[in-house]
Amino acid sequence: MAFTEFRPLDEKSLIEYIKAVPSLSSKLGSDLKVKEVGDGNLNFVYIVVSNAGSFVIKQALPYMRCIGESWPMTKERAYFEAVALRELGRLSPEHVPEVYHFDHTMSLIGMRYLEPPHIIVRKGLIAGIEYPLLAEHMSEFMARTLYFTSLLYRSTTEHKRAVAEFCGNVELCRLTEQVVFSDPHKVSQYNHWTSPYLDRDAEALREDNVLKLEVAELKSKFCERAQALLHGDLHTSSVMVTHESTQVLDPEFAFYGPMGFDIGAFLGNLILAFFAQNGHADQVNDRKTYKEWILRTIEDTWNLFHKKFIALWDEHKDGSGEAYLPAIYNNPELLQLVQKKFMEDLFHDTLGFGAAKMIRRIVGVAHVEDFESITDASGRADCERRALEAAKLLLKERRKFHAITEVISAIQKLQS
Amino acid sequence: MAFTEFRPLDEKSLIEYIKAVPSLSSKLGSDLKVKEVGDGNLNFVYIVVSNAGSFVIKQALPYMRCIGESWPMTKERAYFEAVALRELGRLSPEHVPEVYHFDHTMSLIGMRYLEPPHIIVRKGLIAGIEYPLLAEHMSEFMARTLYFTSLLYRSTTEHKRAVAEFCGNVELCRLTEQVVFSDPHKVSQYNHWTSPYLDRDAEALREDNVLKLEVAELKSKFCERAQALLHGDLHTSSVMVTHESTQVLDPEFAFYGPMGFDIGAFLGNLILAFFAQNGHADQVNDRKTYKEWILRTIEDTWNLFHKKFIALWDEHKDGSGEAYLPAIYNNPELLQLVQKKFMEDLFHDTLGFGAAKMIRRIVGVAHVEDFESITDASGRADCERRALEAAKLLLKERRKFHAITEVISAIQKLQS
Repeated sequence: MAFTEFRPLDEKSLIEYIKAVPSLSSKLGSDLKVKEVGDGNLNFVYIVVSNAGSFVIKQALPYMRCIGESWPMTKERAYFEAVALRELGRLSPEHVPEVYHFDHTMSLIGMRYLEPPHIIVRKGLIAGIEYPLLAEHMSEFMARTLYFTSLLYRSTTEHKRAVAEFCGNVELCRLTEQVVFSDPHKVSQYNHWTSPYLDRDAEALREDNVLKLEVAELKSKFCERAQALLHGDLHTSSVMVTHESTQVLDPEFAFYGPMGFDIGAFLGNLILAFFAQNGHADQVNDRKTYKEWILRTIEDTWNLFHKKFIALWDEHKDGSGEAYLPAIYNNPELLQLVQKKFMEDLFHDTLGFGAAKMIRRIVGVAHVEDFESITDASGRADCERRALEAAKLLLKERRKFHAITEVISAIQKLQS
Repeated sequence: MAFTEFRPLDEKSLIEYIKAVPSLSSKLGSDLKVKEVGDGNLNFVYIVVSNAGSFVIKQALPYMRCIGESWPMTKERAYFEAVALRELGRLSPEHVPEVYHFDHTMSLIGMRYLEPPHIIVRKGLIAGIEYPLLAEHMSEFMARTLYFTSLLYRSTTEHKRAVAEFCGNVELCRLTEQVVFSDPHKVSQYNHWTSPYLDRDAEALREDNVLKLEVAELKSKFCERAQALLHGDLHTSSVMVTHESTQVLDPEFAFYGPMGFDIGAFLGNLILAFFAQNGHADQVNDRKTYKEWILRTIEDTWNLFHKKFIALWDEHKDGSGEAYLPAIYNNPELLQLVQKKFMEDLFHDTLGFGAAKMIRRIVGVAHVEDFESITDASGRADCERRALEAAKLLLKERRKFHAITEVISAIQKLQS
């Protein structure tokens, strides 16, 4: 067996591999079926099912799947994904699939298979399906993972050790820097947009000095501020759902960064989904009610996150977290002041990062299916332009927003 | 010889040690003299002179020298000091003494001896001596070391590698967190002040919610923001001077943190020196002219730093620094906007951190000789109280200051 050095697996060699790994083979019965299902930008993903059990095998190859060998990308990302999956799963076990096996040499993760009817949230949003627990679950996941990996809960010693380890995931961080903070704001061979409709909009972006000033500030925070362990790529395709279950996947971009980057990724992608709805409306379904549900989900996600994050802070305010020592900050009035300031700053970061992620999905290298699945180019461009206007507003004026309801109003205004 | 494991050296065993290390022994002739001169809080320092050459030996012991074995402190700090001395020395060779030898096992550094008339800047400031090149040299040191270790000059890859390494210096970072951002703002057994004169002032600090809110923000930046390689303890006792030479010493607190922490440390300690002058005035010398020189030095240090930092940025604006990519930021108008914002933020950080460092020197564990050498307690308290008022103003209102001249005016006002 080829365990001693890396080799890419295919459906046939994967079976051999599984047979030799007890923690995997012991889960399976007979009637084995293997299917490659990876539709992401980066990795190969195999579903392995049998009459007695199932799992998913994810393997990283030393390049980007969506581009090919011409865009090399460290397969070490699998290591950071496995470490992050285990850490996020420890903190939010109900919303992260269990890891059964990790093989560093093979850059291979064996993990729980999320059986049907689990689907990618983005696909549900395109199909117009409501998920009544999505805001509840995602706010829970984000509040717990961000709070418990920050200095609100941890000692500096624990924090710096973890930060140092995730500094190793630098190649994936650089990829984010490039596609979120750089390429959309300059001429780049990978950029594309719904042309010719958005040609002038893309050009206007590249000429927008005020926007670039703000993007620079956000990029600095992304690169320099190790506030908490981030998923790092928490858009609506990194989450699978049913009506009862919400599962966060694919944290290969994990690193210690600013909390607002994760929250913004999720909310920003919900805002994209909102603006795409007009392109999915038809005579049978005008999507009006569904758009309202999306806006409610955005509002609920932030408000529930806020509530749960503060509840964790209150619960552990006498704990070992070193950012706000009890002996200094534990008078009720001051604690409230401090929490208000913290959450206000986090809200502004969230809007800024969310907006930056929206922009890159309209004029950058990788777009979202929410818009891409709108076949009429002119109609798609109209949706995208409104989303782009929303993003520019949220990014440039983020400090003027003080509650999520104000954001919702601004989005509604741009929609009509 | 005891090279294979750590042991503390004394004047006698040091000679044996030197004889066995060619890079040291080769520098010396006959007529060897060894003298322990460490007067700092942390380490043992030996001057070794001979008729043919000289050097300094600095050894870290596994506790704080000023407290004793009851306050353990990793001797690994010597490793980070050696790495930092070499890196800072590479970037600013005229202002950092050369390292001749580092012994990791022994936590021991052999380095250039700064021969007389070099003295600690703080002692010069107490004696009322003007150093005409101090601002020029310190601005040069800070501009070069901070610029070249930041993402303005470096790639993310180089930056994250260096950040990860210095995460290992966590114990010294924690010491700073404690003595600068925590202890002065709570009841602590190590705190002391000129009692009873400042009893009410120390209490008022501990009750100042607005101040604590700002201190929390600064502490977060200190703990989370890896902006550049900091000296980490750049007060006026970490610098030795003559009229022609300025040498920065003792970077054992080095780590990747916010640039304003270094600049603030130096400027804050100059402000302390200013407020101490009334206590050193006598019938022969009213110190009026000298106070003006200190204020001029504060002003010149910031303005020269600003000029040199921007000059480095302009010079390397097409380089490999990843914070502001040329393809996005190299139009003259935008570059100027970006630089203005960056320097304004840095100015506010500098004032905040400088003020925090001033406060800790008046009510915290370790005070400064500038005040301690004023024998009349009432007179000393008067000097300290004015310095404390200045610090509180600078910390709480720092965002209202836009130029160093405004800071100078505020200091003058509090003095009269």
